Amino acid sequence: MAETWQARAEAKRSAILAAIPEEWLIKNPPIEEQVDVTGSYVHQFLSKREIEITETSADDIVKQTVTGQWSAEEVTRAFCHRAALAHQLLHCLHEIFFDAAIADAKALDAYYAQHKKPIGPLHGLPISLKDQFHVKDVETTMGYVGWIGTFEGKSGTGKEKVFESEMVRELRACGAVLYCKTAVPHTLMSGETHNNITGYTLNPKNRNLSSGGSSGGEGALIGIRGSPLGFGTDIGGSIRIPAAFNGLYGIRPSVGRLPYEGMANSMDGQNSVLSVVGPLATSIPSLRLVFKALLAQKPWLHDPLVHELPWRSEQEREILELTGRIGDASKVGKLSFGVFQTDGQVTPQPPIRRAIDTVVHTLEALGHDVIPWTPPAHKPLLDEGLKTWVYDGGLDVRSAFELSGETMIDQVAFFKKLDKEYTASEIAATNVKLRQLKKEYMEYWNGTAEKTSTGRPVDAVIAPLAPFPAARPGLYPYYGYSTFVNVLDYTSVVVPVTTVDKHIDEVDVGYESLSEMDKRVHESYDPEIYHGAHVSVQLVGRRLQEERMLAIAEYVGQAIGR
Amino acid sequence: MAETWQARAEAKRSAILAAIPEEWLIKNPPIEEQVDVTGSYVHQFLSKREIEITETSADDIVKQTVTGQWSAEEVTRAFCHRAALAHQLLHCLHEIFFDAAIADAKALDAYYAQHKKPIGPLHGLPISLKDQFHVKDVETTMGYVGWIGTFEGKSGTGKEKVFESEMVRELRACGAVLYCKTAVPHTLMSGETHNNITGYTLNPKNRNLSSGGSSGGEGALIGIRGSPLGFGTDIGGSIRIPAAFNGLYGIRPSVGRLPYEGMANSMDGQNSVLSVVGPLATSIPSLRLVFKALLAQKPWLHDPLVHELPWRSEQEREILELTGRIGDASKVGKLSFGVFQTDGQVTPQPPIRRAIDTVVHTLEALGHDVIPWTPPAHKPLLDEGLKTWVYDGGLDVRSAFELSGETMIDQVAFFKKLDKEYTASEIAATNVKLRQLKKEYMEYWNGTAEKTSTGRPVDAVIAPLAPFPAARPGLYPYYGYSTFVNVLDYTSVVVPVTTVDKHIDEVDVGYESLSEMDKRVHESYDPEIYHGAHVSVQLVGRRLQEERMLAIAEYVGQAIGR
Repeated sequence: MAETWQARAEAKRSAILAAIPEEWLIKNPPIEEQVDVTGSYVHQFLSKREIEITETSADDIVKQTVTGQWSAEEVTRAFCHRAALAHQLLHCLHEIFFDAAIADAKALDAYYAQHKKPIGPLHGLPISLKDQFHVKDVETTMGYVGWIGTFEGKSGTGKEKVFESEMVRELRACGAVLYCKTAVPHTLMSGETHNNITGYTLNPKNRNLSSGGSSGGEGALIGIRGSPLGFGTDIGGSIRIPAAFNGLYGIRPSVGRLPYEGMANSMDGQNSVLSVVGPLATSIPSLRLVFKALLAQKPWLHDPLVHELPWRSEQEREILELTGRIGDASKVGKLSFGVFQTDGQVTPQPPIRRAIDTVVHTLEALGHDVIPWTPPAHKPLLDEGLKTWVYDGGLDVRSAFELSGETMIDQVAFFKKLDKEYTASEIAATNVKLRQLKKEYMEYWNGTAEKTSTGRPVDAVIAPLAPFPAARPGLYPYYGYSTFVNVLDYTSVVVPVTTVDKHIDEVDVGYESLSEMDKRVHESYDPEIYHGAHVSVQLVGRRLQEERMLAIAEYVGQAIGR
Repeated sequence: MAETWQARAEAKRSAILAAIPEEWLIKNPPIEEQVDVTGSYVHQFLSKREIEITETSADDIVKQTVTGQWSAEEVTRAFCHRAALAHQLLHCLHEIFFDAAIADAKALDAYYAQHKKPIGPLHGLPISLKDQFHVKDVETTMGYVGWIGTFEGKSGTGKEKVFESEMVRELRACGAVLYCKTAVPHTLMSGETHNNITGYTLNPKNRNLSSGGSSGGEGALIGIRGSPLGFGTDIGGSIRIPAAFNGLYGIRPSVGRLPYEGMANSMDGQNSVLSVVGPLATSIPSLRLVFKALLAQKPWLHDPLVHELPWRSEQEREILELTGRIGDASKVGKLSFGVFQTDGQVTPQPPIRRAIDTVVHTLEALGHDVIPWTPPAHKPLLDEGLKTWVYDGGLDVRSAFELSGETMIDQVAFFKKLDKEYTASEIAATNVKLRQLKKEYMEYWNGTAEKTSTGRPVDAVIAPLAPFPAARPGLYPYYGYSTFVNVLDYTSVVVPVTTVDKHIDEVDVGYESLSEMDKRVHESYDPEIYHGAHVSVQLVGRRLQEERMLAIAEYVGQAIGR
């Protein structure tokens, strides 16, 4: 292959753009000063009907499509159009397969016409997928130039453009329409999305900022409503970061809840802290819809790592009753929350602190308990957890770069400096330490039963997801607020709370930094740059508490009125 | 420490014996020709009342103790006596703490007298524990001379004789009485139980044979009815082997069902194929009793590796209805079984083949489906699985031997020859391969839905647990029939079927061996030596199918009339 990696990247980049129909190309690309490309800006390119459809949440779309009110084709075309715009404005797509999607949508409509019923609970719902999912007829590059034209970097496997990931099969069985795959940072190990094929993925609400990562294409795409719902993955925050940066709801389920089988990954086989797959969307009911639909497919029969845990309505019901959303008044009670103001390593920026306070005050005003969350030391969790990312001394990711000779983005350049693999006994020692840290944390959690007025341990912890509303390009030095959840394997749901207001969220004057890291985060905050950006928090629950946490997040979201 | 390891082992051995009350010592030890020490042989040392109590199954004992019919003290004393006899005849105990047990039993009786109700579902039930459980006031040596007087080989940890394993706490909370800890092979990595402290643990039914391992002390003790129920662990067959060799029921649950937290282990932190903890007993209702009792303690709140899976009555009910044990006639249906006659590596000895045939014919006569089980190649599963045992190149176990300088038993001498640790990327590659093999196996299982008449994939697989009824000392070369279950993380229940009859189970004349390994197994069979030994099979179910598999095993056990 004489071609340079730059030429191959450019060819792929052009091919992506070429998949956009002529009539959907933006003739006059927006000037750089167009910071916010959502809402009225993007509306100029869309019909009223397209706006109506694409600004409907996934759960509400499905209400229309499963009853035959809206055709799958019309819905699909609307999202294809808006996704095409999104990519031109934000560089958020790795694969575009609108034609296949429209053909699939037509087939769904024909099915409906014939049988007078939907094919499944997601009938006609367009769903976007992070570029780790394998979908027939399209590639998976995961942002690597060296993966272009291969199956995960290998040629002649017979799987190229044929093999589909398990969840893809399940989504199709539910009636979902797949139409695009979204951008990732190469290696997946960054909270910003940047690679040599698609470039840097921008935040639609504020193009000064990152759309997050590693599921940053999803964040940008759903953020601008080019998708009603998409799936990302999360090993250190990669679902939650783009959800938070784009004002979306997103859930990081615990390991073993949703099927990862047959997806591409980095450092596959590292099984101390596992990546998980989960949805991002504009509402909690949307997340619940796909979660229930997938579990009804019994993924545990097709993915050896998924536990047989069907959707547990009784766990959801408990929260719904306590918060008076179902059942009688006798069952209404308090929830109790812990509030994690700071991890002691890096102080969250002013808008994040305000968002946390907003949630706390709202819940207190509704009569719920909120107690300080002072768990066992945070840093050992992070230190042990981060080891798992470098077990192989960067061997796996470097080999992916060596395929093409492409350069590494700065955000993941730490992989260049590694030179030593962990040994089996070092890995075993890390696993033992991780288990001990989890045990300490869970006993701390158990112990909060003595501090709440409900007699139960806290139901959820209100915590920052990142120390900033969204990262500025090249300025994402600290992942401690998201990664501790992965290390503990807890359930976490991101809830959008507010937007940055430069008149309220002023710089901390005279702030004394806790460390060099803390200083960098402190100094990266600029109200002028951040103005208008989404500000979110995460609600953290215990392991495998997806039903409860979705119910709690929905309640909190409604309470804060977003 | 000037003392030799031999002297330290001898001192510990003597201390164990010294914990047996004078009046329970056997004055005239049995002559070697006394092959079977169960039943009438051991009865000579016991009162009629002691025999009645100790020959009652755990579930039936509890019916007496939770209603105040039998006192916890009387039950406990009876089992202490019989366990004391067991140890003298079989060398099956590492720790004896009868005084503490009797004191605990008295406290339970006092509780009952005061509250007129039991403290929990296991009120007054004596339970024996493999010597990996930490119990206050006694040691855990796990068969290592170097661990005597330490906490897992370390001194001054503050945990010595104070710390208790999570499951110990839960068993006590349920009202169980703990009274002894049972022998293991040092390293735990053998299907025979032998170490330099307790010596070789014999099979009570046939002292020519091994009691199995690594939970071989449990097997021997329960086999001679010195315990109604005990807990072992299983990473390659270590619960099922002693269950099978001693005519007991035993379940290997999937990882994450019962709490392993706070137990001693070998190669702790190897997390590709994990050891699990589970019960052995004389009946399926006994296994179900403790399983339900432990799950009711919500172990997932105290063990980070346990999944939140309470006892699922509905899964059990499905099997009970299909087999007509509950519900109406309209719900009765067939079960379907796969039968795994041979793994193609080692042919099971004649008594095992007869036991498999007995189960097959019994189930067919009852109208159930039995189809041949021809899964994806067995050997790759074993090859990958066995790698996980030597990831650390034997470092962990050799360091335990170095503490005292003691010699390794031949059965685990392979650890001496290892000299290389696996690297992180080698481990990751193994994990990926293991996942692929599991995926292939599960899809094979799914595919059997097309071969059964029920429309469901097979409900369970009837398989040998070992190629022989029990190993002869020093002759356990092949673990393939037990370890494949661990590699797949499937649920498996051992069911006793028959005993060896030298007049029926004749040597295969003119047998042509498949391999050197197969030849060794073939040649180790001698009807004269094996006569009277227990013969068992295992019923293998999918991952996390404990409720279903216990119900199926109970049905099969009843059907074959044992």
